[in-house]
Amino acid sequence: MMPHDFHIPILGEAKLPSPLRTDNFVSDATKVLLRVKADDQMDELSRVGALESAGAREKIFFDPSTSKAAIVTCGGLCPGINGVIRAIVMGLYHRYGVKEIVGVRYGLQGFIPAYGHSLVTLSPEVVEDIHKYGGSVLSSSRGGQDIRFVVDALVDNGVNMLFCIGGDGTMKAAHSLYQEITRRNLLISVVGIPKTIDNDLQIIDKSFGFDTAIEKAAEIISCAHVEAKGAPMGIGLIKVMGRLSGHIAVGATLANADVNFTLIPELPFKLEGAGGLFSAIVERLQSRKHCVILVAEGAGQEILAAGKKEYDASGNVRLADVGIFLKNAIEEYFSQKKTEVNVKYFDPSYLIRSVPANTADSIYCGALGQYAVHAALSGKTGLLVGMVNSHFVHIPLSQASSGSRVDLHGDLWARVIETTGQPLVFG
Amino acid sequence: MMPHDFHIPILGEAKLPSPLRTDNFVSDATKVLLRVKADDQMDELSRVGALESAGAREKIFFDPSTSKAAIVTCGGLCPGINGVIRAIVMGLYHRYGVKEIVGVRYGLQGFIPAYGHSLVTLSPEVVEDIHKYGGSVLSSSRGGQDIRFVVDALVDNGVNMLFCIGGDGTMKAAHSLYQEITRRNLLISVVGIPKTIDNDLQIIDKSFGFDTAIEKAAEIISCAHVEAKGAPMGIGLIKVMGRLSGHIAVGATLANADVNFTLIPELPFKLEGAGGLFSAIVERLQSRKHCVILVAEGAGQEILAAGKKEYDASGNVRLADVGIFLKNAIEEYFSQKKTEVNVKYFDPSYLIRSVPANTADSIYCGALGQYAVHAALSGKTGLLVGMVNSHFVHIPLSQASSGSRVDLHGDLWARVIETTGQPLVFG
Amino acid sequence: MMPHDFHIPILGEAKLPSPLRTDNFVSDATKVLLRVKADDQMDELSRVGALESAGAREKIFFDPSTSKAAIVTCGGLCPGINGVIRAIVMGLYHRYGVKEIVGVRYGLQGFIPAYGHSLVTLSPEVVEDIHKYGGSVLSSSRGGQDIRFVVDALVDNGVNMLFCIGGDGTMKAAHSLYQEITRRNLLISVVGIPKTIDNDLQIIDKSFGFDTAIEKAAEIISCAHVEAKGAPMGIGLIKVMGRLSGHIAVGATLANADVNFTLIPELPFKLEGAGGLFSAIVERLQSRKHCVILVAEGAGQEILAAGKKEYDASGNVRLADVGIFLKNAIEEYFSQKKTEVNVKYFDPSYLIRSVPANTADSIYCGALGQYAVHAALSGKTGLLVGMVNSHFVHIPLSQASSGSRVDLHGDLWARVIETTGQPLVFG
Amino acid sequence: MMPHDFHIPILGEAKLPSPLRTDNFVSDATKVLLRVKADDQMDELSRVGALESAGAREKIFFDPSTSKAAIVTCGGLCPGINGVIRAIVMGLYHRYGVKEIVGVRYGLQGFIPAYGHSLVTLSPEVVEDIHKYGGSVLSSSRGGQDIRFVVDALVDNGVNMLFCIGGDGTMKAAHSLYQEITRRNLLISVVGIPKTIDNDLQIIDKSFGFDTAIEKAAEIISCAHVEAKGAPMGIGLIKVMGRLSGHIAVGATLANADVNFTLIPELPFKLEGAGGLFSAIVERLQSRKHCVILVAEGAGQEILAAGKKEYDASGNVRLADVGIFLKNAIEEYFSQKKTEVNVKYFDPSYLIRSVPANTADSIYCGALGQYAVHAALSGKTGLLVGMVNSHFVHIPLSQASSGSRVDLHGDLWARVIETTGQPLVFG
Repeated sequence: MMPHDFHIPILGEAKLPSPLRTDNFVSDATKVLLRVKADDQMDELSRVGALESAGAREKIFFDPSTSKAAIVTCGGLCPGINGVIRAIVMGLYHRYGVKEIVGVRYGLQGFIPAYGHSLVTLSPEVVEDIHKYGGSVLSSSRGGQDIRFVVDALVDNGVNMLFCIGGDGTMKAAHSLYQEITRRNLLISVVGIPKTIDNDLQIIDKSFGFDTAIEKAAEIISCAHVEAKGAPMGIGLIKVMGRLSGHIAVGATLANADVNFTLIPELPFKLEGAGGLFSAIVERLQSRKHCVILVAEGAGQEILAAGKKEYDASGNVRLADVGIFLKNAIEEYFSQKKTEVNVKYFDPSYLIRSVPANTADSIYCGALGQYAVHAALSGKTGLLVGMVNSHFVHIPLSQASSGSRVDLHGDLWARVIETTGQPLVFG
Repeated sequence: MMPHDFHIPILGEAKLPSPLRTDNFVSDATKVLLRVKADDQMDELSRVGALESAGAREKIFFDPSTSKAAIVTCGGLCPGINGVIRAIVMGLYHRYGVKEIVGVRYGLQGFIPAYGHSLVTLSPEVVEDIHKYGGSVLSSSRGGQDIRFVVDALVDNGVNMLFCIGGDGTMKAAHSLYQEITRRNLLISVVGIPKTIDNDLQIIDKSFGFDTAIEKAAEIISCAHVEAKGAPMGIGLIKVMGRLSGHIAVGATLANADVNFTLIPELPFKLEGAGGLFSAIVERLQSRKHCVILVAEGAGQEILAAGKKEYDASGNVRLADVGIFLKNAIEEYFSQKKTEVNVKYFDPSYLIRSVPANTADSIYCGALGQYAVHAALSGKTGLLVGMVNSHFVHIPLSQASSGSRVDLHGDLWARVIETTGQPLVFG
Repeated sequence: MMPHDFHIPILGEAKLPSPLRTDNFVSDATKVLLRVKADDQMDELSRVGALESAGAREKIFFDPSTSKAAIVTCGGLCPGINGVIRAIVMGLYHRYGVKEIVGVRYGLQGFIPAYGHSLVTLSPEVVEDIHKYGGSVLSSSRGGQDIRFVVDALVDNGVNMLFCIGGDGTMKAAHSLYQEITRRNLLISVVGIPKTIDNDLQIIDKSFGFDTAIEKAAEIISCAHVEAKGAPMGIGLIKVMGRLSGHIAVGATLANADVNFTLIPELPFKLEGAGGLFSAIVERLQSRKHCVILVAEGAGQEILAAGKKEYDASGNVRLADVGIFLKNAIEEYFSQKKTEVNVKYFDPSYLIRSVPANTADSIYCGALGQYAVHAALSGKTGLLVGMVNSHFVHIPLSQASSGSRVDLHGDLWARVIETTGQPLVFG
Repeated sequence: MMPHDFHIPILGEAKLPSPLRTDNFVSDATKVLLRVKADDQMDELSRVGALESAGAREKIFFDPSTSKAAIVTCGGLCPGINGVIRAIVMGLYHRYGVKEIVGVRYGLQGFIPAYGHSLVTLSPEVVEDIHKYGGSVLSSSRGGQDIRFVVDALVDNGVNMLFCIGGDGTMKAAHSLYQEITRRNLLISVVGIPKTIDNDLQIIDKSFGFDTAIEKAAEIISCAHVEAKGAPMGIGLIKVMGRLSGHIAVGATLANADVNFTLIPELPFKLEGAGGLFSAIVERLQSRKHCVILVAEGAGQEILAAGKKEYDASGNVRLADVGIFLKNAIEEYFSQKKTEVNVKYFDPSYLIRSVPANTADSIYCGALGQYAVHAALSGKTGLLVGMVNSHFVHIPLSQASSGSRVDLHGDLWARVIETTGQPLVFG
């Protein structure tokens, strides 16, 4: 196991006394282990790496009375964004006394004058109830803006703390912003709050909004189960998000025990032949008369690639959609076998990400916002806040990466196999 | 206004004393007016027609101790089916003492031995909690069975009361069953409980499950609204059920005031040109930066027919889907105008019909089941139970018809126009 | 049957053309029958009375460009108040072009300068999302203000349309306001939107918020059922609102079929002796090991009065609470019989009224607000809007009365008896 | 820091090959660190203690074909019990092939013949949908049974695996069972799944059902907030569970940012005087006109003890209820100050524990049941399964203890102070 560099950059020494009415200050020396599970050599774990603990510091760097903060939300929507925004505003305003807070509309676009968006003032009154809604009150957009113009805008607007809520690309952009700010020797803190509905961020326990997303996905699986049982040889087929990782599919399967087959990008599968998905479906239908299949959108790309050549003479790009593809393939398979099946297809798409955050995510988002504020005020920069082994920590933006995949040899997938009763492989 | 014949057939004179512990018996003479609203000549209303009031009769026809009831559910699923089944079983068993009750699996198929389904025993224990689930515990299927075989099966199984829960086709089949039973001089009562997620049954106030369906549709509209506001020039587009009528779209619009354009089969519309949908969208986007469009699946058939010729050289049947068609057409329109829009498309499909019944529908389904039992025990047949002007009544199966449409000159549509602020016509 | 006087007062002839973009205008001559159910003499029904149909009129009385409207909410909270407020504001602003709309804080108090509340401006932006919250954005209070000062305030503020959302007392106050306005020959329209969580308004089908209240009550009954089944000889006891009428208890019982005994103010009951509630509970526990009792807060006043003398030597006013009284009485009864029971008591109190409106109520509130606006603009006054036999109508404020009770010889109570299986009387 | 003894007892060497179709076996050598956060001396952490990792073992001890398992649920209800039961049954039956599984009714009572309860057969069909309901399908009761009789019953019924779902007392009883079984040299595995709605178990991250409980508590806080804002000087006061610890109050406060004052058993508080609760309420009401107070049932015992002497001459035990006490005390305080306040009191009691498990708890309960089965089959005993630092582990029953309290110097309480803005101390 190799040690990681989890050093958090600072803008300078924090010398001002914290205005917080608390005695629960956290020292920079307090750390959380990156890995906590091992085979006997537990003392090795302390060498793998440890992350700086998040929390209020006794000394702060910025003078709240002369500070100005900006909040921007980028990328696709996710439950809980408004909760993070609210917690940042409330923490800045009520706890530290930072009264100047602006929201940037439509992602980093909002910093570029050419787009014509105005900054909006964020106050406790404005954000009081926003956590009860889905989406982002600031709206969002996908990236591509020139980082230098964004830094110009920060300077022009007198912003010295920037909170970036966004996905993998946004964390990379935030890192570039941090680098450009460093290059210009500016005293502007950049703090990221990572967001990914796919829950594929490495290092952290889970991304905010994920629990809500699987709650909604689990509801939809219940509907598919009802439909499958409601018709002769009913097959409920649900497609959920997850281009490169099957986390949502895995979580929803464990949350709703009615799934019989869970298909994820990490697990290649075959349709035809002994051990293929079709024969597993046949077996299931023969014994139970109905079945429920959950497929992540990134699953089965090998088959789709092959399938394209096979089915796509007319150039129909829809075939790249694994949900529609499976629906058609299953219907065709049973049609050739002269067996009646009733495939009920569900594509909830944005439904699972545009709802308000549930309880667990509300708590999580509130914490992320609070810890992001503490980090910025203390003069830290180039970092993101997250939860690791159930403790809140700082992680350098340079370490942010979305490569998390479902470990086919890990606990979670073992529980999926147990829950669905599906074969270890299809084919 | 022409008088209707709302006479309810009976199998014979009801002579047995009711075992019900109540003094709230209803007389066959009690009637409910079909029409209650008029322009001044209110006394004309009594001549339009009146329907027999539902309820327990003081004398019953069947001896509960020697009776056997069967329940069958046909057609597509709908919230509340299990609630109706439960209320029938509870009413038969606990109130009247009919202990022999069977459920027919997979619709009228379940009566035909060739399909290999067995009848299932329904008791209070079996049905106690089923109303908390969506779907039908008996499963369902779509029709086509020979009515004579079904009557044979009723006779073979000693059934003297058949409760049919189903849609327009099922009510017609139930009517044929009643006719065949009459032809054979059998003492078997046939009682229908009409079911249609589209709420397009004539005469009755609303069909069960409709309130739940629009509750779910309204939730999805909220998601589309969130997505529309979350992206630059966001357009939330939702397709809901309603092949021939726009009732679900109308109900969901009134339940969720975030819809800007409601498109229903009853209202032809144009896309292009002044006054067309596109220019209305442009205007909306210019003033508010986002918009929400709700389309019933049967809307815009004129355009789709034309569109087919235009876009469908490759024979892609997906173009017949008004939701996908509109999504593509809007994107193409704005692409040609070099204007960025973000269309977020929602096709909830079965989601709105496979959920458990909400409170209003639970109460309604409980009542329908209770009244169906009273009707059957009293020897009435060839009827359905429903609510008219907020009172429960008997309606002859011969009068069942699904032709209800949204009246473009009526109250409901006027309220849609008020709620959305949309033009009276597009084009 | 005696004819009622349902004449609606007007401020003067409506001469201005309506600005509404619709052709769905309603004539003052259009009426809805008050009674629609009878024993054979259906033509008598037209003589009982008919109510003016609500809806947009072709001619209006007030010039929107010079009009100013005020909205006030009084009495206890109820789901849907914000939905009514929103619909009134949207209708006035967007449909008719009335741009000056004010909200009165904390009920009629808000008109009296001494209380120090300011009027708040209501615009589409302010009310856009308020229907998604429970309560009243205007807050509320209970009455007692001098009507003359309120009229003075209307005059001083230039208000010519007053919308009063409130209960029985508020409708009476609104009627007094109408009379005082008439006495002073002022051209101010007073329109009431009746609100009562107890659903005890006469004439109208149901009050807004009632459906939501019984939805919440039904949820709580489920919890009580779970607790009753979870312990040896478990008794779930729930107290719900209903001082004089049992409508909430009846609705909740029908919505949630798990109640075994429903106790309402309309039905006196005995605890002791053969046929008393205690022996019914014993019987139920012996056969099923658990039971669920739902009691309206106004039930059992006879017993409580007697019980006071018996148990209340220490002057404990808590004994006037039928829920606590029953809990103690049941525990004492079984304690004396040396039988272990586990009483789980639920007093949801405000829980069932402070939630957001559900779908059915959202639609209902939207309609009530829209129809109230049409009525006011057309120069009608001294009226309330409501639904009768499923049609929206105008009712003179003079006819408003909260005397509605559960008819022990009617359909609803018969269905409660069927659903619970409880005896017709206790004792 | 002292090392703990986390050794897990075994019944004997596991020699049989596991029938699981997986290659994801866990070794007994795999451990999870007890503490993962420290001030710089991270290598010390490995010496504090490490817990055996839960999961399927490659070798099992019991032959599934001759095994018989029993499941018992004890103590108060909690969301998710049925989910645990379901996962145990499904795991035993489908994964390992243990076909004989019995449920014990009404807690350990169910083992004692004198109580007259029968064991019930648990099969996949029986438990298929039970996780969708609150409560326990086995019912529950509170303890006191003679452990020797329970072991006799296990022997008499041929049970070799006992799964105990229950609270602190139940874990102690399970430990006594393990000791008695050891004393008798019996080969019976005892596995605990700890349950406590108060979330006050030491070592583990959180108890199952806790997330659901705070979700419901958060809903009720929203209602109290609505009521507080709806009346002049409205005060919403909510009492939630938590006799010795404030975990529910803390979780609900963080989940619902509308609370202004959170009172927990860990924090003594004063009512009167400068810095007391009353003056904090006065200040809040003056600035915002409404306030929300959340009190755990065990808070303020010092005051109640004093209050008793003052108010309780008649011996009314109700005064020991901190909710009622606070309601009365606040009303009296403001009454003396001649200030109108409207206190709206909520006592949700069992409401927050009798609901079905939410998504997060469903996943958690499914995992606990699966890991409990793996532990029992591998011949481990005298242990409980739980989550520590987000990993599932085995903990000796001897270490089970409910002494967890809210750390007033920890992260969570700091976030409560930040969220509510309340003073660090009252008085």
